[in-house]
Amino acid sequence: MKSLWHHCHAATMVGGRYSIIEDAALVTRGERIEWIGPRAELPAADYAETIDLGGAWVTPGLIDCHTHTVFGGNRSGEFEQRLEGVSYAEIAAAGGGIASTVRATRAASEDELLASASKCLRSLLRDGVTTVEIKSGYGLDLASERKMLRVIRRLGETLPVTVRSTCLAAHALPPEYAERADDYIAHVCSEMLPALAAEGLVDAVDAFCEYLAFSPAQVERVFIAARALGLPVKLHAEQLSSLGGSSLAARYQALSADHLEFMTEGDAQAMAAAGTVAVLLPGAFYFLRETQLPPMAALRKHGVALAVASDLNPGTSPALSLRLMLNMACTLFHMTPEEALAGVTLHAARALGLEASHGSLEVGKVADFVAWDIARPAELSYWLGGELPKRVVRHGKELINV
Amino acid sequence: MKSLWHHCHAATMVGGRYSIIEDAALVTRGERIEWIGPRAELPAADYAETIDLGGAWVTPGLIDCHTHTVFGGNRSGEFEQRLEGVSYAEIAAAGGGIASTVRATRAASEDELLASASKCLRSLLRDGVTTVEIKSGYGLDLASERKMLRVIRRLGETLPVTVRSTCLAAHALPPEYAERADDYIAHVCSEMLPALAAEGLVDAVDAFCEYLAFSPAQVERVFIAARALGLPVKLHAEQLSSLGGSSLAARYQALSADHLEFMTEGDAQAMAAAGTVAVLLPGAFYFLRETQLPPMAALRKHGVALAVASDLNPGTSPALSLRLMLNMACTLFHMTPEEALAGVTLHAARALGLEASHGSLEVGKVADFVAWDIARPAELSYWLGGELPKRVVRHGKELINV
Ligand SMILES: [Zn+2]
Ligand SMILES: [Zn+2]
Repeated sequence: MKSLWHHCHAATMVGGRYSIIEDAALVTRGERIEWIGPRAELPAADYAETIDLGGAWVTPGLIDCHTHTVFGGNRSGEFEQRLEGVSYAEIAAAGGGIASTVRATRAASEDELLASASKCLRSLLRDGVTTVEIKSGYGLDLASERKMLRVIRRLGETLPVTVRSTCLAAHALPPEYAERADDYIAHVCSEMLPALAAEGLVDAVDAFCEYLAFSPAQVERVFIAARALGLPVKLHAEQLSSLGGSSLAARYQALSADHLEFMTEGDAQAMAAAGTVAVLLPGAFYFLRETQLPPMAALRKHGVALAVASDLNPGTSPALSLRLMLNMACTLFHMTPEEALAGVTLHAARALGLEASHGSLEVGKVADFVAWDIARPAELSYWLGGELPKRVVRHGKELINV
Repeated sequence: MKSLWHHCHAATMVGGRYSIIEDAALVTRGERIEWIGPRAELPAADYAETIDLGGAWVTPGLIDCHTHTVFGGNRSGEFEQRLEGVSYAEIAAAGGGIASTVRATRAASEDELLASASKCLRSLLRDGVTTVEIKSGYGLDLASERKMLRVIRRLGETLPVTVRSTCLAAHALPPEYAERADDYIAHVCSEMLPALAAEGLVDAVDAFCEYLAFSPAQVERVFIAARALGLPVKLHAEQLSSLGGSSLAARYQALSADHLEFMTEGDAQAMAAAGTVAVLLPGAFYFLRETQLPPMAALRKHGVALAVASDLNPGTSPALSLRLMLNMACTLFHMTPEEALAGVTLHAARALGLEASHGSLEVGKVADFVAWDIARPAELSYWLGGELPKRVVRHGKELINV
């Protein structure tokens, strides 16, 4: 059964550029794009339905390739305390920070986590997000990481979005392992990852490489364990200091290295050579009032693919809008709107290992797209927050009440 | 006919503080609040309807007290050019900047402006905004300013929101008056304001006091003309330089002075003495990548009432979310969530001269309120963009499909 979508322009994002087709038409057949091109060249055929998009701009469905959408509680109380003058040290001494999210996540039932994560994810979907990556990493023990990963799988079953799950057991040191980081990493590698992978809960493995989390040597052990399980890796790297995590990630052909404010030009060269995507997270940069910008010139010079994501998490980026991240990528990181849009489409797909099927409007790819009521694609980065009128199509079917 | 709203907590914002009532109940009668207090103290009465708010937090309806929601075109093209390296000078030479918005606004029909402004305003309403101020100022001739003000009135008739109109004819110098700013101000004072006021289109008068707009002496002539017409005044002041506009505004008992990054402590004292509200606009600060913060310590020390608004406009703050401005007020201006919330409720009402009827949950005030599915009021400032689940009540009636 073929559907014809016409009366639109398309920013296909082929090759990571706008790759615009004016006065375009798309033909979908089931879940796939069967044809796309200028309407004048549309082949004659019988279409089961013809949909007039009213002059909209069509883009691929947006992809948020780095989120921590599943968590217990939230940290709005801490946010308020800090603004009222309470110090980080006092908040940490009172059990705040990531420790409070770990406690709340461990204490929550699977259904409770599903309900709270669904609220956050619904907000992301309002921006035309059709694919999202979600990480574990607030459980930090086998049962709690499993619980998070099961919630992540259920989100993909209950909401109209493709969900990729990433195991981030090496996110922080759980209290049971205080002062024993190497022992925890050993537990992650020999017990947690193999068990969770065997249950089919893990699409990729991530870790947090930072002086307040895990060292490059510890991260490398996690990467070796992931490789043994046949799982691709990703890494939180160079957010607060330069430890060479992104070069390490490149050595393990990581799908992506993420954050990267403190990366060096050498890291950029290594990532470009390995095809590792740079995932930039302007929401965390903004929320933490950071000042060190990612090295955009070096990233561009070496041709590293740039993705942009929300980093949705309760501590450092409670961001419920991926379109807002496009604006922040432009305003704070000086990306162009075209780079930013590639960052939430083709390059985000690549950061998830999905570029063969997602991220651009091309024949054979999944028919996930958004028809925006805008005058030019730059509007997706230009408007600050709020919601833009649009129609969202997923797997060839229009979603109602997105 | 009385309605009982219960099973909620209330941040009433009385006195510009949270002024929380836990386990609260509200009684509305027609458009007004007839009673509010702890549910345990609810007087026995017959209620035509009883609404269970499911444990929500109730706040006053949000008030966006500074917007330029009506405009032709948008400036996403310029936004993209600048990020691609085109200079401001080149853009201006090509007819860009505010001149392009004036051209597009003059060229648009009233219905076209109504349609485009409705789209923007609908996005603001999704944040629980029940009152909004909208300025003219892209017409800059009598017919075009009238057209904008008529659109502003029609927005209040067609959408479920209370709209206050501000005449900002002294926004910029129109091309017809190049090099003749004093002549334009004379035209504004003797022709435009009297005509537009006589038509009932003007609730307040605003001007832009800045080296690239109008001088304090020119602004004062506008204020004198407004006073003669019995209209309250407001002022865009101290955004890019310190000209003493906010002190001038205070001398004319202005409802508000807005922007204020470059104001002095003396300005703050004058505003406090006059009861002039300081309207802070973090969206423009962010979008223009400004670095000079408003003098928060001086504003607090002298007890100036602080409001927060979107400044929604196509050139310097294309902000479609007032809740995002709460986050930016906290993150960029270091306001507390309580100050920020007062800034879009009670203090915003005062900036519009509406504090007797709007801005807090008090007996006798209009029953405009929002029931938010959140755990504490700080969440309204904490989340970054996106949409929060809520129910919106305006004039005592719940809005459907906000
Ligand atoms: Zn992260
Ligand atoms: Zn303004």
